[in-house]
Amino acid sequence: MNALAPAADIDWTAFATEHELATAIFAELARCTGDGIGITRECYAPGEDAALAIFSAVAHAHGFAISIDPVGNLLVCLPGDDGTRPAHLIGSHADSVPQGGNYDGAAGIVAGLACLIRIARSGRELTTPVRLLMLRGEESAFYGRANIGSRALFGILSPADLAARSRGTGRTLAEAMTSVGIDLAPIRTGQTLFDPSTAASYLELHIEQGPVLIDRRLPAAVVSGIRGNLRHRRVVCRGEAGHSGTIPRWLRKDAVFAFADLVGRLDEHWRVLLERGLDLVVTTGIVGTDPDQHALSRIPGEVMFSFEVRSQSHDTLESFYELFRAECRAVGQQRGVAFELDERVYTEPARMDPAVIERLCAAAAACDLDPQTLPSGAGHDAAVFANAGIPSGMVFVRNANGSHNPAEAMAIEDLIKGTDVLYKAVTATN
Amino acid sequence: MNALAPAADIDWTAFATEHELATAIFAELARCTGDGIGITRECYAPGEDAALAIFSAVAHAHGFAISIDPVGNLLVCLPGDDGTRPAHLIGSHADSVPQGGNYDGAAGIVAGLACLIRIARSGRELTTPVRLLMLRGEESAFYGRANIGSRALFGILSPADLAARSRGTGRTLAEAMTSVGIDLAPIRTGQTLFDPSTAASYLELHIEQGPVLIDRRLPAAVVSGIRGNLRHRRVVCRGEAGHSGTIPRWLRKDAVFAFADLVGRLDEHWRVLLERGLDLVVTTGIVGTDPDQHALSRIPGEVMFSFEVRSQSHDTLESFYELFRAECRAVGQQRGVAFELDERVYTEPARMDPAVIERLCAAAAACDLDPQTLPSGAGHDAAVFANAGIPSGMVFVRNANGSHNPAEAMAIEDLIKGTDVLYKAVTATN
Repeated sequence: MNALAPAADIDWTAFATEHELATAIFAELARCTGDGIGITRECYAPGEDAALAIFSAVAHAHGFAISIDPVGNLLVCLPGDDGTRPAHLIGSHADSVPQGGNYDGAAGIVAGLACLIRIARSGRELTTPVRLLMLRGEESAFYGRANIGSRALFGILSPADLAARSRGTGRTLAEAMTSVGIDLAPIRTGQTLFDPSTAASYLELHIEQGPVLIDRRLPAAVVSGIRGNLRHRRVVCRGEAGHSGTIPRWLRKDAVFAFADLVGRLDEHWRVLLERGLDLVVTTGIVGTDPDQHALSRIPGEVMFSFEVRSQSHDTLESFYELFRAECRAVGQQRGVAFELDERVYTEPARMDPAVIERLCAAAAACDLDPQTLPSGAGHDAAVFANAGIPSGMVFVRNANGSHNPAEAMAIEDLIKGTDVLYKAVTATN
Repeated sequence: MNALAPAADIDWTAFATEHELATAIFAELARCTGDGIGITRECYAPGEDAALAIFSAVAHAHGFAISIDPVGNLLVCLPGDDGTRPAHLIGSHADSVPQGGNYDGAAGIVAGLACLIRIARSGRELTTPVRLLMLRGEESAFYGRANIGSRALFGILSPADLAARSRGTGRTLAEAMTSVGIDLAPIRTGQTLFDPSTAASYLELHIEQGPVLIDRRLPAAVVSGIRGNLRHRRVVCRGEAGHSGTIPRWLRKDAVFAFADLVGRLDEHWRVLLERGLDLVVTTGIVGTDPDQHALSRIPGEVMFSFEVRSQSHDTLESFYELFRAECRAVGQQRGVAFELDERVYTEPARMDPAVIERLCAAAAACDLDPQTLPSGAGHDAAVFANAGIPSGMVFVRNANGSHNPAEAMAIEDLIKGTDVLYKAVTATN
């Protein structure tokens, strides 16, 4: 998919308010990267390049310096920042999923630009500089690997990742990265291409991809952590098929009733653990009896289902998994069925830094926001920075209709509230 | 499917024991109607004709008279029975499903023949004669309609039934019935072709199609009634889809968790109603999320399932159905989902006659059998006779592996035990 070139005749310094500037940036993004349904900004490809060009035009218009890091991300620095001191990095990504929404990723860059503009206009001299990192390739949609731009910085892109082909252009990731001038050699050898000592913290603003802030009537809130997950793609509950009319309850090994029993027990454990204050979501997104065997009047001999539990806490994930295994055994014994589990897949949660959370919450309170926190259920580049040891934090902005679809709906007022929190956090004691 | 002609050279009177005679009849049935996998006796077609020819040869060899009723069933009478007095009718069917087992239907006819032979050999003069009705077309497998031979007798075959095409021969049922010499005119006009005053009772012996007698270590038992059922082919539980990581428990409308909750509640009601002594089985044979929408990390927005409840009691069916509807509403309110039900399909239970049950139980006790009763979960011609007002009863004989498959496994010893009960019941106070 091609993208239009950004307009050369927009004076990015001419907008009277931050609200007007943000609205104009999103309008230009939509114009250049619209695909007829939503927007498409394929990474290391014209869509992401166009978005970065628009952001860069705004930065240049305000006199900021832009440098390109070894993996193609753009770093925006304020005048007078010589790059020698560790900085608060405000980061977000320029790419999108195909037919995605205009705010996922871009909202965080717009917020970062707004912070830099505020700092520049205030004339403040900051002890810890603030920089904006515009990342590439956060979405997994094109290459099946998320956080390409941040993972490449920390030397954790695999040869398989580099060999994956884009569902958009058909090129390999290696070819796509080369096309924007990246030297693959250090990436292939897993070199760390980011100096952690240059980052005092990593801060990311993102639209919320769930409905919590809408439900709580909060324009923005601080993220407590990024959930990891434990999954089985396919669990089979195996009982015994039989004639539905002729087999009484005490002789049945009904796989569906056993599955329902298991889910009921897990639901109750979940409820109790939430009451105890633990972070947890449990989902069986896929369920089905076997179409080749099932019938209205046949006791189901088997049912397959997926299992997923997510939490910010490794311990909670493992504890709930033990409950899951134990209840599978208990239901199996009571109902004469067996649960067969495929390979367990584990994704580590990412902890947001307690001091950074505290700073963000204090900033939120100073902005007259109820300083509530909420977990992130989806992954973000902040997880990569956090797991690399850089103190990280996130701000979520209220958004309707989830993300990864053209119906994303964020109010610019809410984005400005979130930007207030970010700005306050990087300038308060600085 | 063709069938072999019965052997002309078997002397059906020459077997020393009933066990040997029964074994020989089943062997000849298997030889003539075997299909390489199981046996196939398509109704109004060569398979059923061959089976009837074998039974008729046995009857003729013992000097019994055979007449054909207006719908093609065969009535076997003892010498001296002029047909003027009401009789105890022992009935069963000669047909089978495709690739079926050798005992479903045939066992009841063999038991009837054995009873007649015992009466003839005993030289007893019975006040109420005993006759054997060899029925056609009990299985629904070929024309989608069960109990063709008995329904035709009572004028309840519909034009749609007569127009249905066999999955075997491709002929319509009307063509098939005509081919064996049946005059369709009175059947088409719904005439009753059976005079109820000729039947003091209708008694049917059948293999059990479930595992209860095996579990109870009983060779045979009396049937308490034939279960009817209430069904929905397709219930849709509709909630709201969403990202499994970003939507907390309190904002979820998870269709699968709601379905599991519903099944758990129904299971508990079922358990309690069984403790109260009611007859009930509950099954959701088909369950599935939508393959076009479901995903491991997506909260399921809908799940479809089938619902079936069976009972010998109309009241129990209706009461449980009310519980089902009430729990759908309760789960719907609590979990923010809605249950959408397709058309309700009702099949009336058939009551076995209390006096007939008492007579059969007394006979079972006299045969040193624990006089337990059990319901029939599947349909039988006895249900048609019972619902037509003829006092009816059934005897089940122990059988492994269900029915409608070649693995049916009935011991001849058990069949003889069941025959003992039948014989005692029709001769005890006669």
